[in-house]
Amino acid sequence: MFQTFTATASPEQGPPRLAALRAAMAERGLSGYLVPKADQHQGEYVAACDDRLAWLTGFTGSAGFACVLTDMAGVFVDGRYRVQVRDQVADDFTPVDWPEVRLADWLKAQGATGRIGFDPWLHTLYEIDALYRALEGTDIQLEPVANLIDPLWEDRPAPPRAPATEHPEEFAGTSAAEKRATCAQTLKDAGHSAAVLTLPDSLCWLLNIRGADIPRIPIVQAFGILHDDGHVEVFSDVEKFADLAPDREVTIADWSAFEPALSQLAGPVRLDPQSCPDAVRRILSAANVPIAEAPDPCVLPKACKTETEIAGARAAHLRDGAAMCEFLCWLDAQPPGSLTEIDVVTALEGFRRATNALQDISFETIAGAGPHGAIVHYRVTEDTNRAAGDGELLLVDSGGQYRDGTTDITRTIAIGTPTEEARAAFTRVLQGMIAISRVRFPHGIAGRDLDALARVPLWSAGQDYGHGTGHGVGAYLSVHEGPQRLSRASTVPLQAGMILSNEPGFYAEGKFGIRIENLIVVTPAPQLEGATVEGMLSFETLTWVPIDRRLIVTEMLTQAERDWLDTYHAEVARRMRPRLSESAARWLADATAPLG
Amino acid sequence: MFQTFTATASPEQGPPRLAALRAAMAERGLSGYLVPKADQHQGEYVAACDDRLAWLTGFTGSAGFACVLTDMAGVFVDGRYRVQVRDQVADDFTPVDWPEVRLADWLKAQGATGRIGFDPWLHTLYEIDALYRALEGTDIQLEPVANLIDPLWEDRPAPPRAPATEHPEEFAGTSAAEKRATCAQTLKDAGHSAAVLTLPDSLCWLLNIRGADIPRIPIVQAFGILHDDGHVEVFSDVEKFADLAPDREVTIADWSAFEPALSQLAGPVRLDPQSCPDAVRRILSAANVPIAEAPDPCVLPKACKTETEIAGARAAHLRDGAAMCEFLCWLDAQPPGSLTEIDVVTALEGFRRATNALQDISFETIAGAGPHGAIVHYRVTEDTNRAAGDGELLLVDSGGQYRDGTTDITRTIAIGTPTEEARAAFTRVLQGMIAISRVRFPHGIAGRDLDALARVPLWSAGQDYGHGTGHGVGAYLSVHEGPQRLSRASTVPLQAGMILSNEPGFYAEGKFGIRIENLIVVTPAPQLEGATVEGMLSFETLTWVPIDRRLIVTEMLTQAERDWLDTYHAEVARRMRPRLSESAARWLADATAPLG
Repeated sequence: MFQTFTATASPEQGPPRLAALRAAMAERGLSGYLVPKADQHQGEYVAACDDRLAWLTGFTGSAGFACVLTDMAGVFVDGRYRVQVRDQVADDFTPVDWPEVRLADWLKAQGATGRIGFDPWLHTLYEIDALYRALEGTDIQLEPVANLIDPLWEDRPAPPRAPATEHPEEFAGTSAAEKRATCAQTLKDAGHSAAVLTLPDSLCWLLNIRGADIPRIPIVQAFGILHDDGHVEVFSDVEKFADLAPDREVTIADWSAFEPALSQLAGPVRLDPQSCPDAVRRILSAANVPIAEAPDPCVLPKACKTETEIAGARAAHLRDGAAMCEFLCWLDAQPPGSLTEIDVVTALEGFRRATNALQDISFETIAGAGPHGAIVHYRVTEDTNRAAGDGELLLVDSGGQYRDGTTDITRTIAIGTPTEEARAAFTRVLQGMIAISRVRFPHGIAGRDLDALARVPLWSAGQDYGHGTGHGVGAYLSVHEGPQRLSRASTVPLQAGMILSNEPGFYAEGKFGIRIENLIVVTPAPQLEGATVEGMLSFETLTWVPIDRRLIVTEMLTQAERDWLDTYHAEVARRMRPRLSESAARWLADATAPLG
Repeated sequence: MFQTFTATASPEQGPPRLAALRAAMAERGLSGYLVPKADQHQGEYVAACDDRLAWLTGFTGSAGFACVLTDMAGVFVDGRYRVQVRDQVADDFTPVDWPEVRLADWLKAQGATGRIGFDPWLHTLYEIDALYRALEGTDIQLEPVANLIDPLWEDRPAPPRAPATEHPEEFAGTSAAEKRATCAQTLKDAGHSAAVLTLPDSLCWLLNIRGADIPRIPIVQAFGILHDDGHVEVFSDVEKFADLAPDREVTIADWSAFEPALSQLAGPVRLDPQSCPDAVRRILSAANVPIAEAPDPCVLPKACKTETEIAGARAAHLRDGAAMCEFLCWLDAQPPGSLTEIDVVTALEGFRRATNALQDISFETIAGAGPHGAIVHYRVTEDTNRAAGDGELLLVDSGGQYRDGTTDITRTIAIGTPTEEARAAFTRVLQGMIAISRVRFPHGIAGRDLDALARVPLWSAGQDYGHGTGHGVGAYLSVHEGPQRLSRASTVPLQAGMILSNEPGFYAEGKFGIRIENLIVVTPAPQLEGATVEGMLSFETLTWVPIDRRLIVTEMLTQAERDWLDTYHAEVARRMRPRLSESAARWLADATAPLG
């Protein structure tokens, strides 16, 4: 079982650790110290040895940071974790509502002065520049220092040392040599001599490798330097690379060689301000190496999947979809009230494992029954676990990591007889999801331009949802990947091959939550007769799993929306039937029948 | 008659004027000189005395500029004017496709070197800064010089001297004193001691005055300085203000007093980089006055119309709508092929004049028959005039200036029996226009977020239109007004009171053009039962004129779209019937009947 249901930190460990940290601060004359959740790779998950925030405070949420002053220790967490943080940290820590309260403003409000230390490996250029700007004109100085937590952490886990494995061209579609050449050309065109790669998924994509250093994302933790001649230097634990075939153009060295290698670069060296650690800039600056701030050259080509990757995604979704159908068939057979959220998560992981192809789940499954469905990032623990009762909705958002692709799907299921209020809201969410599924659009259109299409049906009823409509998805990499998004925050034009989620929702606090999510891939649209715009794009659907017809108010749909749903369900039936057990195939026939 | 149908410039006058300009350049040692269409107020129209571009080149389009070198004279025009410019300028001038070719790139391609002169009163900060940046590292120097055209222009018309008139609170809804206080507070909040106002419509709005210095926009040409205590200094022709009641807080001075007044300001002085002439910045800098670049403080409050202005807009649209209905009734009674575009423009202006309230047309009427409808900014002249034949579409985009409001409406009318291709395209355009009319949306949503709603029906058929969905509209001011727009270029959140056009279209080159345009005003949406979002916004329609039912393919519409159209037409009938002649009322009954 990948997923666990226990909270791992204990509040009582916090106060002595906090005292030890304050002693270390005093030794160095620091009036404050920053402890982020992030590691030096700025990934979505951190290894156990990097979870300094949990070690210090007890808080185990996926994002946030602490700012420890001599007489106050703020734990900054976002809206998802306002309740959780109060359960997990001792009274010596003060939860702060972030990002509503910004660090600089909080420091000013505390009357902080003097030197605030931070570990420059754990903060990006963007973060540090913004903080320097926000503290201008105050009596607070920021000071990069060696990490203060690490020497205090006695039983600190060892860094992950999972072996790197080849991600063969059979899955990647492009050779590592070709990728290196393309990205090197990007650097040459920009007049940059090299780029520092600090995002492990960029490096894994570039080298066609995968790993198992952290849960949920099959990456190898490493730093890289890509030179404009296509040569790559990798800095990591050399042992991890022992099983890989050697490549003359890729040098593997120890972590400790990274800093000397940086110092010897000629410039200009490209750093991505959104992800590169401040420490890298400091090392380059100290060695007088010119710096150019620009996006990581791997991010955009990684986002535009190859034909092979798209074929892999289709295959992964058929496999994953069959597991979902078996799960939904099993779920429908249980009497209302008989299943808890943990039962649901456990059973679903079991159906995915039964594919014999599951490498990992792609994130912690969200199974929210009744009011828990309205908590957008709900993760069930033994403390919060509840049964899904008659008349409630069950929201299940989950995904799998397969070698040929990463999946992410949400279905909302009626347990017993749903309310009319929930059915009407579900139908509006479905209309938004269909609007995105059906849209054709010209080149140049970004996520921001399309996001509203998914909201109009909800808006017309005075409703909305507080998250983007969709995020980018990697190819056997992170389930959250940029730069593409269906969101008002994204102005990057959509390009063929980009995989996105399409997941509008509606959340009635204290009552129910609804989300319907398919993955889609941007694809050239077939030319139509009478068309005057060349080369339009559309979305191909990757996810083939029934949408709960018991929750649809047919009369609210237009004929085009009904046609879309019936066609979708007919395709689900066609694709899934041969892959299912006899009982699931019977269930499927009902679940995909045309709307009445 | 406001509109004329003759081209006023003659190509043969260009070459001797060009030679004289080159002699003036040589005297000053300049290797080039810029001649923009714009005047010092950067308005959409210029007075005859400011049309230096037409005087020099013969080109009379509404936008563009010339760059005269010693051996080459480029005339930079956008896509609207590519054909027209070739007819209007002599061979000594070289048309340049702008903005595809940027000035700096063109200069480099010509191998230009040396000093390029420009009149700093005729170029904005934004323009000049961008040009300096683009020419960095070249052998070209930009040099502000006194205007070189004006001394050569022998029969130059006198500057306009139309009297300023009061725009009473009965129309404005807010006193000038209140506006001055509000905008002064904006300056105080930003720590600015004054703002330089160079946009005449800002100054006219602020002072509740109107004028007649240029056609189509009822403004007084003047500069202003708004101080943070609410005092306003106006610089213009003092005579123009003779009939206005004196106001202790508003000082009127001659144009010549502007430069000395600028030099005496304390800073920081706010300049809007998008509209302020470079000359103003140079004067302030020479006097060591600190400068702050920020938006003109009048622009946003001017865009959010008062209840009184909205009531005025409703009244103006009923009046203008009745004229449109009389016109459409008259048009439908003429046999196909019997009317030319000039006949149409002339008749329509006549119906508007018959209201006895028309102050001006709000722009040159676009009447495009058949293929001319596909030329988005077509303006008929005696040379291009053609009849609207059987089976053709006639696109008529027009508007009026009334003291209580500015109108802008487009209707596309079937002459005889339309083709099925045109009807299908018309129906898609209508679906987009209805989508905008019906949408409810939360606070924070900008034009960029909604623009796609109007395009989805066209996109689904591989079609699109090459302009924004809508522009802001002034209150008895410019028919094009910022910052609000329904466009991918606009990220300014929509606010209650903003008036916009809603005008999707479709253009089949060489065949026909379609556009359907209503004006709409952003308004608080009524709270709905079950709503979870507070204070949503929606659009109230201002325009009440039938949409040609002969061009609608009813089966393509959803029930909700049919309901919208039938409800709209029922409202058109209710509001217009009492205002129409007997024959037009009979026509109206047919034109507004429910869809079959």
